[in-house]
Amino acid sequence: MERVKGTRDWYPEDKAKQNYIFNVWTSVAKSFGYKEVEGPILESEELYKQSGEEIPEQTYQLTDKSGRKLVLRPELTPTIARMIQQKKELKKPIKWFSIPRCFRYESPQSGRLREFYQFNLDCLGFSNMKADAEIIATAIEIMKKFNLSKKDFYIRISNRKIISSFLKNINLSYQQEVSRLIDKKDKLSLNDFKSALKECNVNELQIKQILKFLDISSVDEIKKYVNDEQGSKGVEELSSLFYYLKKYNLSSYCKIDLSIMRGFDYYTSTIFEVFDSSKEFRAIAGGGRYDVAGIPGIGYGMGDVVLELFLAKKKKLKQQEEKSKVYIITLDESSLKASYEIASKLREFTTVEADIMDKNLTKQLTYANEIGSEYSIIIGKDELNKKKFKLKEMKTGKEQLLTEEQIIKKFV
Amino acid sequence: MERVKGTRDWYPEDKAKQNYIFNVWTSVAKSFGYKEVEGPILESEELYKQSGEEIPEQTYQLTDKSGRKLVLRPELTPTIARMIQQKKELKKPIKWFSIPRCFRYESPQSGRLREFYQFNLDCLGFSNMKADAEIIATAIEIMKKFNLSKKDFYIRISNRKIISSFLKNINLSYQQEVSRLIDKKDKLSLNDFKSALKECNVNELQIKQILKFLDISSVDEIKKYVNDEQGSKGVEELSSLFYYLKKYNLSSYCKIDLSIMRGFDYYTSTIFEVFDSSKEFRAIAGGGRYDVAGIPGIGYGMGDVVLELFLAKKKKLKQQEEKSKVYIITLDESSLKASYEIASKLREFTTVEADIMDKNLTKQLTYANEIGSEYSIIIGKDELNKKKFKLKEMKTGKEQLLTEEQIIKKFV
Repeated sequence: MERVKGTRDWYPEDKAKQNYIFNVWTSVAKSFGYKEVEGPILESEELYKQSGEEIPEQTYQLTDKSGRKLVLRPELTPTIARMIQQKKELKKPIKWFSIPRCFRYESPQSGRLREFYQFNLDCLGFSNMKADAEIIATAIEIMKKFNLSKKDFYIRISNRKIISSFLKNINLSYQQEVSRLIDKKDKLSLNDFKSALKECNVNELQIKQILKFLDISSVDEIKKYVNDEQGSKGVEELSSLFYYLKKYNLSSYCKIDLSIMRGFDYYTSTIFEVFDSSKEFRAIAGGGRYDVAGIPGIGYGMGDVVLELFLAKKKKLKQQEEKSKVYIITLDESSLKASYEIASKLREFTTVEADIMDKNLTKQLTYANEIGSEYSIIIGKDELNKKKFKLKEMKTGKEQLLTEEQIIKKFV
Repeated sequence: MERVKGTRDWYPEDKAKQNYIFNVWTSVAKSFGYKEVEGPILESEELYKQSGEEIPEQTYQLTDKSGRKLVLRPELTPTIARMIQQKKELKKPIKWFSIPRCFRYESPQSGRLREFYQFNLDCLGFSNMKADAEIIATAIEIMKKFNLSKKDFYIRISNRKIISSFLKNINLSYQQEVSRLIDKKDKLSLNDFKSALKECNVNELQIKQILKFLDISSVDEIKKYVNDEQGSKGVEELSSLFYYLKKYNLSSYCKIDLSIMRGFDYYTSTIFEVFDSSKEFRAIAGGGRYDVAGIPGIGYGMGDVVLELFLAKKKKLKQQEEKSKVYIITLDESSLKASYEIASKLREFTTVEADIMDKNLTKQLTYANEIGSEYSIIIGKDELNKKKFKLKEMKTGKEQLLTEEQIIKKFV
């Protein structure tokens, strides 16, 4: 029986690595005061029809017995929007994070699977570039917690208002198609990029303007390319965002990059991506400022699939040790009760295994070594009579005869 | 936009409660040396057709674009079986646990939802009643960790071999139907139970025998009711299981109850349920010994839905406090840099929030109180000049002027 394509199994060593990633996400989010939330995997199709147009086709759909169309959530944002609408009394700022399992029906390829986890962190209820800066700070902090440095990754930042204003400014009619091409620019040769633009009815002059615009790396330069209210507002926001990032001492991680677009149409202001410096992978994280259900928010998603590939490449995803600290060796039936008793007491403080396969002494010792337990406790008739047990340090072979109390004290 | 029936949202306070439950499950499983695993939510339909007959009808199904029939997993065991078959080199004992999210398409009712989590703990690769006892010990330990006592719950234990042998012994032809009725006995009046048995062609004498059999509470009594090899083996197993439970000092939590059947046909020996003493709820957990893909195993599932209802009823599911420890108050723009710096340093050790909404001093203080932060750190021009910040204990109002280093030391 085969596993479904684009899904994964997590054996203990895989799950331990995944838990390491989840723990980094969780601990950073909590340290900034974000609270964990979760929603259903099964949502109604209508919820998704409202947001963006790219989603429905790639979504797993099913019809329940009452004829209602359901989807397996491809992302969390519409659920978050629903949860906020449902509970009007929520206090602002709404600072939430989540590690939802999501589903997208697309061909499995490097960095893309049909089942994945996506860390989401959002700050909702108001608009202020201080929040955008904090959100980006959490993403950088996460990367640093994975032992990654400025050499390994950077943040590409843009502002949707600026792009819209610029495209209007050069009189482009097919803004959406051109946006998509610009987003793909890094994956195309210069010539392919130009021809593709031509196919969208972009003329030579406009192409020249686009290429110059995409090369911009400072806020001051941008001002030359936007001349309406929307564009000025975008420049003001971007400038304010960098002002706060500087206060965070994080501006050296960040780079203006007007070529990033993000797939969704709902972004309204800041957009950003966490990107590997070698540009070998897809975006590691991406997000921006949006409005959902009339509520402004800023947030991002960081999927587990690309991140794992990137961490593995950078050798930052080490085997997570999960060894049992103590193995209890029972020499005969008479010592069972005492061994279960000390095991139960020790489990308050550490991991304890005992024989469950009726192994003899030699095999129990071999097993204790195999599972890498640090200590074994040997309990037989002699030990029971003396009310002292043998504590053996597996690495050195050093043995001590200790009372139950003395042993427990060692692991508290 | 409504949530789909039988699904749930977890706002921060709900998720904190759920995390408390997950943490108890995880910490007990780990303390016994069980390792966490996980599998896909999407599995192929065929995987489930092999196991039990009750599953397919209640399962969410979907067909992918290539025409392959998929299901949303209703339980984890078939996935575990697949994972073990895939990896022949796994060392025994295979001690695994998981907290899979599962799906069952049934009418939502008390204790039953369409989306739920089910803690699974299994020990695979061999047959030994020592393992069955350990498995039951983990379930009892979990209940104790939830601050529940002998008064609140007990373990009902039976053995599938004994039941089969007895039903054969009294010459019953419709064993499966009768088994189902016996499983429901607690929910029926005595008269309804009898009439239902009659409808299954069970005669008066057989009914009398069944009622006497179901009243049995000791291994010795059972011996009178079984007279074949299978039955004797069952008695031997049950007797051995209680011998080990006694060694664990847990037999007082356990009760022979031959009326429990468990839904699945794949159990081969021990079967058990964790049950609330008031018999108000469905089984809180259930499991037993089985063979999957030729591999013997013992394990159980404990769903989150009944457990939450039970814990809430027993007032053991308290609000889980998740407050930010420190709130940093910035008096003006000039102190932003210093405030972000100390926040970043403190986040290594605790939860720190800072203003992101451009609130004034009064509003920042009000907010710090609202979110229940223990301390606030006040940073303004004065403080910057002195290179000392005001640390305010929110409850007492007590203020201290301290250097950054002194403040950090307080939270390490």
